[in-house]
Amino acid sequence: MEDHDCWVQGFKGSAVASGLKKKGGVDLGLIFSEGDGVAAGVFTTGKVKAAPVLLCMDHLQDHRAKAILVNSGNANACTGSKGLADARRCSELVATELKIPRKDVLVASTGVIGAPLDMDAVAGSIPALVKSLSAQSIHRVVDAMMTTDSFPKRSVFEGNAGGKPFRVLGIAKGAGMIMPQMATMLCFVLTDLRIGAGDLRKSLSSAVETTFNRITVDGDTSTNDTVLVLANGMAGNKEPSSSELDLFQGALKSVMGDLSAMIVRDGEGATKLVRIVVRSAATAADAERAARTVANSSLVKTAFYGADANWGRVMAALGRAGVRMEEEKISILIDDVAIVRNGLGVGTEAEGLAQEKMKGREFSLVIELGQGNYEDFVLTCDLTHEYVSINANYRT
Amino acid sequence: MEDHDCWVQGFKGSAVASGLKKKGGVDLGLIFSEGDGVAAGVFTTGKVKAAPVLLCMDHLQDHRAKAILVNSGNANACTGSKGLADARRCSELVATELKIPRKDVLVASTGVIGAPLDMDAVAGSIPALVKSLSAQSIHRVVDAMMTTDSFPKRSVFEGNAGGKPFRVLGIAKGAGMIMPQMATMLCFVLTDLRIGAGDLRKSLSSAVETTFNRITVDGDTSTNDTVLVLANGMAGNKEPSSSELDLFQGALKSVMGDLSAMIVRDGEGATKLVRIVVRSAATAADAERAARTVANSSLVKTAFYGADANWGRVMAALGRAGVRMEEEKISILIDDVAIVRNGLGVGTEAEGLAQEKMKGREFSLVIELGQGNYEDFVLTCDLTHEYVSINANYRT
Repeated sequence: MEDHDCWVQGFKGSAVASGLKKKGGVDLGLIFSEGDGVAAGVFTTGKVKAAPVLLCMDHLQDHRAKAILVNSGNANACTGSKGLADARRCSELVATELKIPRKDVLVASTGVIGAPLDMDAVAGSIPALVKSLSAQSIHRVVDAMMTTDSFPKRSVFEGNAGGKPFRVLGIAKGAGMIMPQMATMLCFVLTDLRIGAGDLRKSLSSAVETTFNRITVDGDTSTNDTVLVLANGMAGNKEPSSSELDLFQGALKSVMGDLSAMIVRDGEGATKLVRIVVRSAATAADAERAARTVANSSLVKTAFYGADANWGRVMAALGRAGVRMEEEKISILIDDVAIVRNGLGVGTEAEGLAQEKMKGREFSLVIELGQGNYEDFVLTCDLTHEYVSINANYRT
Repeated sequence: MEDHDCWVQGFKGSAVASGLKKKGGVDLGLIFSEGDGVAAGVFTTGKVKAAPVLLCMDHLQDHRAKAILVNSGNANACTGSKGLADARRCSELVATELKIPRKDVLVASTGVIGAPLDMDAVAGSIPALVKSLSAQSIHRVVDAMMTTDSFPKRSVFEGNAGGKPFRVLGIAKGAGMIMPQMATMLCFVLTDLRIGAGDLRKSLSSAVETTFNRITVDGDTSTNDTVLVLANGMAGNKEPSSSELDLFQGALKSVMGDLSAMIVRDGEGATKLVRIVVRSAATAADAERAARTVANSSLVKTAFYGADANWGRVMAALGRAGVRMEEEKISILIDDVAIVRNGLGVGTEAEGLAQEKMKGREFSLVIELGQGNYEDFVLTCDLTHEYVSINANYRT
């Protein structure tokens, strides 16, 4: 996407280098919505929730928001009551400068856990952030969110509601600590569509289920996972019809699906994006559980790295997934190449073909359980030397 | 342990290079018990069970066994009805040569999944195996079991029952695919104690619970996990008293505990053995679940590798463990150095001290939840570059 695509009517952005990131670079970003719209959020399901998450949950009780302050370099997590006070103070500082109610400001943080936020750095940078807000600078907010991300993540959708064009822009940061049930991941979706708060929440929940809740990098979840959607109504459409709501829901899924795949593709050290598909499971829960278990198996993920069609590891992972299965009914395919039929290996020729596919950057691992009619999927990546390097040396 | 310690009265062993291992070397071992004793087994809890596991479960229905044939190089797993027929044939060949009932022969395999066992290699080697059985050669069986193990694993205990000395010898192979609820792990325990079949089973179940079920290398389980105990009664003791049974149970725990720790220490690519201890959990299940979740977190394990006292990752793992917790009540220690108190970091000085301890080969990570009176532990290792190298290149 070109930078000039990174905009939505009525939204402005800005970013500065505040000094929060040890290595320097932009680390503090602001998004401001000129309209008077609605908002919704989805957050980490872990019990350890960072201060910014607790603040957003509180501020979103009225389903409204006009600004998001985001920083990298420090997660403001496991920081106790001081952390919560710091997050509140951030929202107050932005609110004062923007002349809006404090409750209309959301905050999001990513970075090191357990260290206090450098409030002097944040406070000193907010006037400049507000001053430099512009419709052209939202892409700079993406830069300010990045931690171990190797590329900025953005996706846009353009639609039409009752003759009024609207846009949905999603920006995200991801990389490590990605796992179903929300990742260490921040995602902000901005749209100029006019939509009711209830419809926005429903659309978001539904879209998260098939996008961010279907990705994994290392099975770990984070304290700071946050997806926020702001809709400012500036497209000027009437209250959307049911088919327009469907369109919007599709737009959200498309944008969030793009971002999910980018996050896995950019998983720490990842060289391959793999779609784990489980078919003909006995129940929906079985399909999901089987896909997640395979997607999080270190042995399966290292086999992906080595482009090794080592289906025995897939069988072993299925065996401990706790799902209804009979070994002799299982088929396994890499893309369209069957390597297991009726629980037995098809042969070395098929494995050779499969391994050629596995040398690519993206492929599917399809598992047919032969038990019923349920299907699900999870996106995962390979486990590499680089993953270990990044995470053994993240803080030190 | 010296090789001459690797014996128990009435047990003989032998090993040959049959050609099952691509790289060559001994790969087929036999253990034979001269006595007429009892046996018990514990097996993988995964639903995909290898043929040798199914055979052992069948042959142990009478709680008796006199021989174990073990091979490396091929797991005889995911090999369907042919695999089962092959395992049966192995037991028949050994039984014929030893002139004992087929049901008294157990088999165990480890190695590549999904490839048929080379029956010619096995059949051709069995006469030589039987011929070379000797009390001094049990240590050679350990060599024949090794796959990616970097050292042989043996432990011995000497006790006394009613004035009669007895020994408990354990031998094991481990390395990858190690995880609570049984690992890709073979363990054979041989004792000359006279003991009833029921008591032997009870002692084994109890010992497994606090040893092999409390270790993890990569969270994966295997199709072939097997622990077998043979007791041949040749110590000549009377039926053990209740205190002698306690002594034997302690002996089993000691031997199997030693072997468990060796397996984790020799986890694929591992450089550190870490004991994850969870204290003051609300329930026993919470204590275990919290310990397992932290022990299997890739982010925690890479931090161990980097000797990084990154307690934020521990908190994040606890947060997704699904246990009763309050962030502000949590303490975390490395050995005796507290790095978190009341959910907050103690400071960089404490972390520095903790990091010094983490540079060693063995340390504990202690988590106090402050919820109740339950405690549990799991042994784990670090996640390293070498783990990735080994598993990305295992077959290819």
